[in-house]
Amino acid sequence: MEDFYNHLYQKQLEVQDMPSNKRIAEWAMNVLHLLFPERNSKSFESVAEIKLAFEQAEVELFELLLKTKACSHCDNREVAAIFFTELPKIYNCMLTDAQAIMDGDPAARSIREVIRTYPGFTAICIYRIAHQLWLLGVPLIPRILTEHAHSKTGIDIHPGAKIGEYLYIDHGTGLVIGETCIIGNHVKLYQGVTLGALSVAKSMVDTQRHPIIEDYVIIYAGATILGGETVVGHHSIIGGNVWLTNSVEPYTTVYHLPNSKFIDSKPTV
Amino acid sequence: MEDFYNHLYQKQLEVQDMPSNKRIAEWAMNVLHLLFPERNSKSFESVAEIKLAFEQAEVELFELLLKTKACSHCDNREVAAIFFTELPKIYNCMLTDAQAIMDGDPAARSIREVIRTYPGFTAICIYRIAHQLWLLGVPLIPRILTEHAHSKTGIDIHPGAKIGEYLYIDHGTGLVIGETCIIGNHVKLYQGVTLGALSVAKSMVDTQRHPIIEDYVIIYAGATILGGETVVGHHSIIGGNVWLTNSVEPYTTVYHLPNSKFIDSKPTV
Amino acid sequence: MEDFYNHLYQKQLEVQDMPSNKRIAEWAMNVLHLLFPERNSKSFESVAEIKLAFEQAEVELFELLLKTKACSHCDNREVAAIFFTELPKIYNCMLTDAQAIMDGDPAARSIREVIRTYPGFTAICIYRIAHQLWLLGVPLIPRILTEHAHSKTGIDIHPGAKIGEYLYIDHGTGLVIGETCIIGNHVKLYQGVTLGALSVAKSMVDTQRHPIIEDYVIIYAGATILGGETVVGHHSIIGGNVWLTNSVEPYTTVYHLPNSKFIDSKPTV
Amino acid sequence: MEDFYNHLYQKQLEVQDMPSNKRIAEWAMNVLHLLFPERNSKSFESVAEIKLAFEQAEVELFELLLKTKACSHCDNREVAAIFFTELPKIYNCMLTDAQAIMDGDPAARSIREVIRTYPGFTAICIYRIAHQLWLLGVPLIPRILTEHAHSKTGIDIHPGAKIGEYLYIDHGTGLVIGETCIIGNHVKLYQGVTLGALSVAKSMVDTQRHPIIEDYVIIYAGATILGGETVVGHHSIIGGNVWLTNSVEPYTTVYHLPNSKFIDSKPTV
Amino acid sequence: MEDFYNHLYQKQLEVQDMPSNKRIAEWAMNVLHLLFPERNSKSFESVAEIKLAFEQAEVELFELLLKTKACSHCDNREVAAIFFTELPKIYNCMLTDAQAIMDGDPAARSIREVIRTYPGFTAICIYRIAHQLWLLGVPLIPRILTEHAHSKTGIDIHPGAKIGEYLYIDHGTGLVIGETCIIGNHVKLYQGVTLGALSVAKSMVDTQRHPIIEDYVIIYAGATILGGETVVGHHSIIGGNVWLTNSVEPYTTVYHLPNSKFIDSKPTV
Amino acid sequence: MEDFYNHLYQKQLEVQDMPSNKRIAEWAMNVLHLLFPERNSKSFESVAEIKLAFEQAEVELFELLLKTKACSHCDNREVAAIFFTELPKIYNCMLTDAQAIMDGDPAARSIREVIRTYPGFTAICIYRIAHQLWLLGVPLIPRILTEHAHSKTGIDIHPGAKIGEYLYIDHGTGLVIGETCIIGNHVKLYQGVTLGALSVAKSMVDTQRHPIIEDYVIIYAGATILGGETVVGHHSIIGGNVWLTNSVEPYTTVYHLPNSKFIDSKPTV
Repeated sequence: MEDFYNHLYQKQLEVQDMPSNKRIAEWAMNVLHLLFPERNSKSFESVAEIKLAFEQAEVELFELLLKTKACSHCDNREVAAIFFTELPKIYNCMLTDAQAIMDGDPAARSIREVIRTYPGFTAICIYRIAHQLWLLGVPLIPRILTEHAHSKTGIDIHPGAKIGEYLYIDHGTGLVIGETCIIGNHVKLYQGVTLGALSVAKSMVDTQRHPIIEDYVIIYAGATILGGETVVGHHSIIGGNVWLTNSVEPYTTVYHLPNSKFIDSKPTV
Repeated sequence: MEDFYNHLYQKQLEVQDMPSNKRIAEWAMNVLHLLFPERNSKSFESVAEIKLAFEQAEVELFELLLKTKACSHCDNREVAAIFFTELPKIYNCMLTDAQAIMDGDPAARSIREVIRTYPGFTAICIYRIAHQLWLLGVPLIPRILTEHAHSKTGIDIHPGAKIGEYLYIDHGTGLVIGETCIIGNHVKLYQGVTLGALSVAKSMVDTQRHPIIEDYVIIYAGATILGGETVVGHHSIIGGNVWLTNSVEPYTTVYHLPNSKFIDSKPTV
Repeated sequence: MEDFYNHLYQKQLEVQDMPSNKRIAEWAMNVLHLLFPERNSKSFESVAEIKLAFEQAEVELFELLLKTKACSHCDNREVAAIFFTELPKIYNCMLTDAQAIMDGDPAARSIREVIRTYPGFTAICIYRIAHQLWLLGVPLIPRILTEHAHSKTGIDIHPGAKIGEYLYIDHGTGLVIGETCIIGNHVKLYQGVTLGALSVAKSMVDTQRHPIIEDYVIIYAGATILGGETVVGHHSIIGGNVWLTNSVEPYTTVYHLPNSKFIDSKPTV
Repeated sequence: MEDFYNHLYQKQLEVQDMPSNKRIAEWAMNVLHLLFPERNSKSFESVAEIKLAFEQAEVELFELLLKTKACSHCDNREVAAIFFTELPKIYNCMLTDAQAIMDGDPAARSIREVIRTYPGFTAICIYRIAHQLWLLGVPLIPRILTEHAHSKTGIDIHPGAKIGEYLYIDHGTGLVIGETCIIGNHVKLYQGVTLGALSVAKSMVDTQRHPIIEDYVIIYAGATILGGETVVGHHSIIGGNVWLTNSVEPYTTVYHLPNSKFIDSKPTV
Repeated sequence: MEDFYNHLYQKQLEVQDMPSNKRIAEWAMNVLHLLFPERNSKSFESVAEIKLAFEQAEVELFELLLKTKACSHCDNREVAAIFFTELPKIYNCMLTDAQAIMDGDPAARSIREVIRTYPGFTAICIYRIAHQLWLLGVPLIPRILTEHAHSKTGIDIHPGAKIGEYLYIDHGTGLVIGETCIIGNHVKLYQGVTLGALSVAKSMVDTQRHPIIEDYVIIYAGATILGGETVVGHHSIIGGNVWLTNSVEPYTTVYHLPNSKFIDSKPTV
Repeated sequence: MEDFYNHLYQKQLEVQDMPSNKRIAEWAMNVLHLLFPERNSKSFESVAEIKLAFEQAEVELFELLLKTKACSHCDNREVAAIFFTELPKIYNCMLTDAQAIMDGDPAARSIREVIRTYPGFTAICIYRIAHQLWLLGVPLIPRILTEHAHSKTGIDIHPGAKIGEYLYIDHGTGLVIGETCIIGNHVKLYQGVTLGALSVAKSMVDTQRHPIIEDYVIIYAGATILGGETVVGHHSIIGGNVWLTNSVEPYTTVYHLPNSKFIDSKPTV
């Protein structure tokens, strides 16, 4: 066993210390709480207090970047500052997502219910925060954030995906959106939808491996759309359980034709 | 940015303060712990202590209702009282669920194992608590509870669904039961089953959008059953991956006929 | 209600006290943190401290076994000791899994990212710990551990399954591996794959109910492979959404032939 | 060592389980927080919420009494109810204490400062709560409460002491007020004052062992007043460091005559 | 009782919300941890991380000031900035205090032991932080800080007192230093020493009520020095239990002449 | 400020990392909880569980010693083992202390009350644990432990003091027992007693600086006994506020003769 302990000790010496996944996730959840007072029991008595809370979140982000050694050749403080400068735009985008869910789900009674209880909304918000950090070149933290959302909601959106406004996500469990996906505005995605790669070889890093979904597309539960050359044209509807590896024209509706056999198994008397 | 902070401040002023999702979920988990000592490290030394613990849970529920402004024109205290009067009935129903899992899963070694480790059992119990609150007209809290279960188990049962006794749920991940579903007694549901709406338009609020599953039906993994007019007759068996949008008679067995192509890809020497 | 309280009190008297699921899961997560300093903010200043930490983990395991009354006719202390003697082997196996993910996923940027963020890796590691305890005859704890992983990752691997080295698991949500599955080396499993039982009757306890997957098999997302007599021969590829209940020869590729209907639904002007 | 472990185990079996000191102290601190919103970050949105919070505190007290087996031949629930019925009177008394400190200490800037920062005020409040429980015959809990205050403030007031309104306590450290002390209204006590027993023999249980302090008495720092027959008449002033074991008439001023020697120890050049 | 609840609700509405005492104390303890790595398990990997930690402490101070409404007619942010600009000076002063204890107590084995374990050192440090805030006109927070130190150490130093460098405080329990005290450099104070007011009338606010202690004075345990006109000249020694209400010249030694009676109480045979 | 941060960084590099005071204190409090089930809400179901708990406490002590680098030239593991071998003896000694308080204080109603609520008992127990570590040559930890007790109880016993059985300590606030004190059996000490050094010069390290108190001595509140050559003979009684710097024979009673002036200050009509 001594060898084993020595091995672990050597490995530890090589490893960079960095903030825990938990702390990184808490930072993002805190930003969400600041943006959506509906989720937040902590209330502010003045605009000055809100401003201060954002400043603290910026300092915390700076510290996370510093400790992750996020930026070797750039300025972590500047990255943190840019993120918060962009935040109002991200926030407006999140509002469009909440609206899309409210408009699309008959079971949604109010925007407050959407913001407080819809896992789809949480997952999209975390993605939008992670994606901004991804755009700023921050390593590891974006993936840690979307994995946190994945763990809580079963919805796995890679921070590298490009997603437009008014994204509707439903129950969401099992939804996967791959790294090089491009999704337009006003898209609706139901649970168990996969927007994945057709085949998966390590050599494909940095190529377009995942499909392009244009504006106003609806993809029902369990549909699978694969491949970097697959484009789903705008205003198309992809039915539940459809398996799609080729592009479809705009305004196309694709149905899955189930192939089932029915047997009468009533017990004979 | 000042405008942004002002906007958030204004929005906060409009928002009702209410208990956090975490606190609401903890209340329900505590009720479960009281009902199932197998899950509970806190032990009671007398019946009086158990009684007291339930009284505390009732006061806590009253507080949650009060702070949620659950009942504007009714008596929150009475709602809390009714809930706990109904609890023994709910408990008996949960026992039938545990028994159904114990009887149905070869991997289950004991009722204790079912109660402590089966996510399906946890999800059903939380649903049964949430459904009782739903029946009492409590807003928001039922959805918060079932979303908590969804997040922990991947099983999404809408609190509005009506479900009979002896519900068997298996691994469960990805299972979805919609708001207007009606499920009979002795039904078995495997993972990835969707009991959903055929199409989803906001105008369909308050209509029967989800299927009716009669007694003694078994629905295997990945099956999708959609639509408010779809009735699965009693003693039917719906096979894995079946896609069903029409009613079936009692005692029907439906198989998915897979359509696969087999290629020998052995490397030639 | 008095009867109800009396009933709960009687039931409590019959129930064994045992450590909470949370504590059991924390023990396993702590072992993982010791093995993978990448996940761990606590650093050790000497080999002696690492050794001590493992000794503490062993004492903690002993306590968990003792309190679970795990071993009625054997020596809990010895079981704990054997587990930690086997740990270096388990660790080496986990390293092969990390390598498999690193080699197989184009989106993985570094081994550190795999270890810190891939839910598949976490689920496999927890399974490997739970499986060792299962082999040692420990009741309940292995299932509690794999359910913890299931809850966090959506990946459900039964601790009784037998799994070789270099297991690749991807996003993983919805993956199910049943109790009597046997999986070879260098197998790749994508999300939503089910390795399950063909039919599920309680009488089948202790029989081979789940399939055998030989070496170098790849199973794509959403595929379902069922039955204890089903053997997937080595170097086979099972395509996405395939439904398989019979054995296939080595070097077989199976495609799902989708059956979809395309309709042009462009609005006419 | 086995004998030692056996001994501890036997002893444990004999010992009653009861709530921890920490939990008992938290109950009392919570009551204080309810009474003095100045100390309290939790705010209430309506009178109904305040009422509910007191009801919860009453249920918690009932549980503490139940678990302490406080009342073998009386009704713990009734004791809890009486305590809260008396609370408004106790509260008014606490207000007189705060006023006494505000009036008496030149360094006190506001009542809020007194309530938030004066250890003397905290110690008096805890005493007044503990004394009410003492009057109701509750065992152990009153002493646990005053020891909590002692630990936090260095002020040791036995819950059995009888103390009038407008008690002024200053810095307080080292102040001791014995079990059978009787203190009038408008009394001022400085730090290090002892109101103790003249001699201390176990046989003196239940006799008047500690002095009587009448109204409007001031006792300066470090004074020691001992004995159950010692009465300090009203409007008397006892100077710092005075040692008093006999009664003094009303309107008496007692000075300590210091006996010191002064030496010029200037270094000679 | 309704009246009582109404009364508390009204009072609550009048009360300012402000940060809890606990949070204010934690801020100060955190500053101490930053200054003295001997007390601190959190280690920094670079100067940049230390700088960031101070910036966070400054933001936190700003927030505390803002929420306390500390500065109605000045700039809370500027106050926070000034405090941290002055901190290196305060730190140097603390180092002289640690050195004074190390030099003066034969039981002190190392500076590390002084910094980690001497309550006198903790109390002085907290006083020095509180005094700087007092100088900047911050209300309430300085008193909350010194009361925190009082509660932990039994040492009560008013934040308004003026104290020079190299202050030696020993065991300290019961030591009191009043609001208008002036203490020179290289002074040694033993436990139970009171530097207090001669008489205490509310009208004396803002007058010099407490003594002046010049450089190199030693005051032994239990001595009491009172009055705003009392000056203890430099290089004087005040013996244990001395009661002093008049000034003494420099280089004076004052002994307490004990007045005791010895009785042989040997039991006769 | 950059210089300041650099300075702190340099200092940190020089400083040894060691466990926090809090963690060290928790270890000792845990040992106390194991010894006195009256203080302990955690109950054990078997002797084996008790044994295990002690083993864990031993491992924890070993870790504390290791991280404190307690023993450079000896075996930390052996030191931890010896401590626990000695623990039954220490425990028996603590029982004599509890009995002494029970026998001596009329206000003590039961041994359970003594063990749960008397700060004197807590302080003695912590001292006895710290003293054993002191005897084993452990640096720093013993002082950290007795300072913890000092902070909680106001009682300051140096871990180096030698104290016999049946020590009675009362309210205790302000009690000081110096490093080289020697105290016999059956000694009673009241609050504010100082057993200190006559003069305090750094050069006196390792000499006998504090008094010797023989068996069956009683020392009443506020008495001060100083000097390494001062011996209080057995069966002596030292009255309250006595100031003693010379030895007294066995069977001596010493009274403080108060010197007070009484003035009738009745207001004339």
